[in-house]
Amino acid sequence: MSDPDRSVSRYHHGDLRGALIAAGRALLEESGPAGLSLREAARRAGVSHAAPRYHFPSLRHFLGDCAADGFAEFDAALRAARADAAKPRDGLAAMARAYVRFAAHNRMMFRLMFDRDSFSEPTEALEAAGARAYGALVDAVRALDGDCPQSVVDARVAAIWSIVHGFATLMLEEKLGRSGNDAAGDMAATTVLDYLVGATARG
Amino acid sequence: MSDPDRSVSRYHHGDLRGALIAAGRALLEESGPAGLSLREAARRAGVSHAAPRYHFPSLRHFLGDCAADGFAEFDAALRAARADAAKPRDGLAAMARAYVRFAAHNRMMFRLMFDRDSFSEPTEALEAAGARAYGALVDAVRALDGDCPQSVVDARVAAIWSIVHGFATLMLEEKLGRSGNDAAGDMAATTVLDYLVGATARG
Repeated sequence: MSDPDRSVSRYHHGDLRGALIAAGRALLEESGPAGLSLREAARRAGVSHAAPRYHFPSLRHFLGDCAADGFAEFDAALRAARADAAKPRDGLAAMARAYVRFAAHNRMMFRLMFDRDSFSEPTEALEAAGARAYGALVDAVRALDGDCPQSVVDARVAAIWSIVHGFATLMLEEKLGRSGNDAAGDMAATTVLDYLVGATARG
Repeated sequence: MSDPDRSVSRYHHGDLRGALIAAGRALLEESGPAGLSLREAARRAGVSHAAPRYHFPSLRHFLGDCAADGFAEFDAALRAARADAAKPRDGLAAMARAYVRFAAHNRMMFRLMFDRDSFSEPTEALEAAGARAYGALVDAVRALDGDCPQSVVDARVAAIWSIVHGFATLMLEEKLGRSGNDAAGDMAATTVLDYLVGATARG
């Protein structure tokens, strides 16, 4: 069988996968993970409706790869925020702001990333991307105090992640009043710093 | 027209609404808000499939009233936790544990309560129940320091709510490792106390 669509998708092969993921992410922000289809992503990317099947076995795999793409961007934003900071504590505060900012600018992606089992296949790429973003936080907490026992590092990571994730989640659910995204990020950063003062005072 | 179902639902009128909400809450935990129907709630409550319409104009109203029932229980659990504490700080730590415990024991209800616009009608009863639970937290923060300016109270409420909500959310998403629900509650309580040490040190 000679399928003209097939030659089109082969022609675009070099960046077809990237183009479909970009289209999928744009659709995700418009309609949420439940409103997305492979057919509509293909239409947006300007390729045949059969083209996505060359790269993604199912919609759930496609959403998994979209979520992995989101995690890569999130990880990069967290690491960049920390890189500019003079001191480890400032780095954690900057990461808190970057975390909340990412959620504000990628509302549906953020929801997909943290409720991914509902919508996407837990692919290796997705798990690895999530683990790298988590590693950015662990690195930043370890940098506070090199002699800190692992159990204390783990507890601080859980605490700081909960603080910033809580602010991001309540902001997206519009529970933090009319204070806006930047204010939510600043509150998250201040809360992380206050927590660190208390946690280090405790020992 | 003589409808036997109607006489049945009239007969149960005294507690039909409560029986339907109890059945709806049980179904909610089994199937999530998207898997619930008025017909199935009626079947569970042992009444005719037409009976729910006397009390709830739509499934979204029914889910709204179920969420309001959940908020009432949540509010009672938060207030009871604080009532047993000797000092205001202990009261906030106990509320943090009760918050996480409620989420662990009412996973789907907790999701419905905090993503209620996706599934339920924002009825007055629901908004009032949510506001009362929020008020429990505000009261507990005010009790820390009667002279605290309102802006500081607001910031502390946002911080403490974010901390405990973050722990509860990450625990439900199984992101806090294998530490279990009680450990998540204890970490939330410790984090709130550490935050308070830092926040009061800051002034």
